Amino acid sequence: MSIQEKFSRLGTDNAPGQEVRQEASAIATLLRGAALAGRPVDFSHGDVDAHEPTPGAFDVFSAGVAAGGRQAYTEYRGDFGIRELVALRLAEFTGAPVDARDGLIITPGTQGALFLSIACTTARGDKVAIMQPDYFANRKLVEFFEGTVVPIRLDYAGSEGRAGIDLEQLQAAFTAGAKVFLFSNPNNPAGVVYSANEIAAIAELAGRHGATVIVDQLYSRLLYPGMAYTHLRAGSLDPENVVTIMGPSKTESLSGYRLGVAFGSRAIINRMEKLQAIVSLRAGGYSQAVLRTWFDEPAGWMQERIRRHQAIRDDLLAVLRATPGVSVRTPDAGSYVFPALPDLAVSHADFVRILRLQAGVTVTPGTEFSPHAGNSIRLNFSQDHEAAVQAVERLVALVERYRA
Amino acid sequence: MSIQEKFSRLGTDNAPGQEVRQEASAIATLLRGAALAGRPVDFSHGDVDAHEPTPGAFDVFSAGVAAGGRQAYTEYRGDFGIRELVALRLAEFTGAPVDARDGLIITPGTQGALFLSIACTTARGDKVAIMQPDYFANRKLVEFFEGTVVPIRLDYAGSEGRAGIDLEQLQAAFTAGAKVFLFSNPNNPAGVVYSANEIAAIAELAGRHGATVIVDQLYSRLLYPGMAYTHLRAGSLDPENVVTIMGPSKTESLSGYRLGVAFGSRAIINRMEKLQAIVSLRAGGYSQAVLRTWFDEPAGWMQERIRRHQAIRDDLLAVLRATPGVSVRTPDAGSYVFPALPDLAVSHADFVRILRLQAGVTVTPGTEFSPHAGNSIRLNFSQDHEAAVQAVERLVALVERYRA
Repeated sequence: MSIQEKFSRLGTDNAPGQEVRQEASAIATLLRGAALAGRPVDFSHGDVDAHEPTPGAFDVFSAGVAAGGRQAYTEYRGDFGIRELVALRLAEFTGAPVDARDGLIITPGTQGALFLSIACTTARGDKVAIMQPDYFANRKLVEFFEGTVVPIRLDYAGSEGRAGIDLEQLQAAFTAGAKVFLFSNPNNPAGVVYSANEIAAIAELAGRHGATVIVDQLYSRLLYPGMAYTHLRAGSLDPENVVTIMGPSKTESLSGYRLGVAFGSRAIINRMEKLQAIVSLRAGGYSQAVLRTWFDEPAGWMQERIRRHQAIRDDLLAVLRATPGVSVRTPDAGSYVFPALPDLAVSHADFVRILRLQAGVTVTPGTEFSPHAGNSIRLNFSQDHEAAVQAVERLVALVERYRA
Repeated sequence: MSIQEKFSRLGTDNAPGQEVRQEASAIATLLRGAALAGRPVDFSHGDVDAHEPTPGAFDVFSAGVAAGGRQAYTEYRGDFGIRELVALRLAEFTGAPVDARDGLIITPGTQGALFLSIACTTARGDKVAIMQPDYFANRKLVEFFEGTVVPIRLDYAGSEGRAGIDLEQLQAAFTAGAKVFLFSNPNNPAGVVYSANEIAAIAELAGRHGATVIVDQLYSRLLYPGMAYTHLRAGSLDPENVVTIMGPSKTESLSGYRLGVAFGSRAIINRMEKLQAIVSLRAGGYSQAVLRTWFDEPAGWMQERIRRHQAIRDDLLAVLRATPGVSVRTPDAGSYVFPALPDLAVSHADFVRILRLQAGVTVTPGTEFSPHAGNSIRLNFSQDHEAAVQAVERLVALVERYRA
């Protein structure tokens, strides 16, 4: 594959946060009516000003700077003292041991962990099972390493009480030779959590076929009341065949520090460090210190964060569900909602652009997550509560205006 | 190529900073005499406690944190305001325009820029010309993307007044089909600067063959008095065929913030951003703010930094040159010195381990930079002056003790 072909498949024009690079287009001819006034809301990512970083994060960073060279230059996989601390907390959270020396790597964001984990398990021509829909980079990562994507359907809309994975498709993928399965739990974009039965079935199928499972648990701490969460790594699968990815960038609003971790399989973590040495050397040295605050937030802090997000979620769902033709499942966890819109007089891709132009509302088109989700849009509702509700009111007003 | 083969070529055990992961080995049987007392010095990287980060860097970082979401979530290629600022300064420094919108990307360290630039120019089977010796990751990057390394000899030892590139080999590489040439200037590890004639010849050859040149100028600001520096990008080569990489992590001791930039070819920078989106999203948002201090240091600050490094350099050279059989060229720029050692009673690889054990002196073996530099070692002399001199005195004492 030539470099030109390889990169033609790596488009980022509609990726969250990149909207500012879109050229002015012929969209003007499609516009109906006047713009709607209101405070602009960028639902492509969370608003860390509305939901501030963990208390103490900056102080710990400052202490890292004061520590000087030993914090600036860590092992490529990260400072050992911090790995020890984090390993204990992650073992407690996930219910299975974490090897601080050989089974954990600190990465520049969870994106860094995803990149390294796919790079370290996927050779040219390898089959990799990924969910549809799922995080937009998953497909691109597999394609960049010239692996073959085997899509697995997630029937999130029709599966209350479970995520809705099509286990027959997963079994068929393994039977056809897929040696890697990558999925996010809770699912990004749909916010659904895999049930204990679903996780047990994934472990059983992967175990039977000797497959490696990479699970992106970025939002697993922001779990709404009454929901149960099952950690794949605490189940029956050989621990050397599981890599778990987490990070403090979302729920904890620490994105600006670019931190993630991957933990589990020693063999894969070892390869990931070798690769990180030539990709970015290490996660920012001073930033690593911020992990000291992770899973050590003040009492009640996480509960309050969850309460506030639930309140926003429920208000947005009410506005969306009052609009005929809009359908949406209640997210179990995290801060994404993924409504399906009715047919419109413009394409859904154009509607996403119109939303930005006429309502100051930035959302991510469903096609970033699945070729079959073109009528859906993703909203990260970790926003100012009032501004978010008003923005979604403008959104549904435009749905009415452009209804087919 | 299987994943196992691919990663077996990516060893990091001897990479700078990774020595802590080496297992205790059978080295004990080779030891002669007692350990030498003295303050340990890790010459594998600079000591940012001895040469502190640029004044004001932390304040600017803090302001970035205070700016909140808009600093945490930038375009993947980095905050536009910061790109504008840096583009102007880099244009002035290098003597050719820099396009802030389309021709510059901020990366997690210069390592990030190197990785992306090779990934975006090298497909499987492509020939890439690289210098021997040169920065240890260059070879690994080409091999990771299954390119073919075409080595070009650098006769640094015998070429005062120029770096010593073998231009006939470079021409032969281009004639044989190499479409990319990657080199560091000043050279890492030898600290030599390419002359105006050498740069003009590189530009002429690359231009004639339509090749892209990636030049890593990480140390180009730390230039010793009387040296001239020629920027390739200000020469005759088509600007779309040049990518220049720099960063504030070395001379400015800002490594802990993980910052680099690549600038030049719009087409390649555009691909680099697409790839960065799935590799690490962006350089740490708050860290990007630190670039505001770059090329804007207090008056006299850089001159003083150069003066102090020159003083250390000259003292170390005197100690090394007083030792029979040790040969070393005076570095023109930067803080690396790359002496060749005489034959010893142990292998040079074992001697590097013995140095650590018996003298508390960590250096990087020459084989990291070239298969033909096994008798050389690299020292980053950006250290405490007195400690560095004493450490090199212990080093030459052990050369005497183990002399063949």
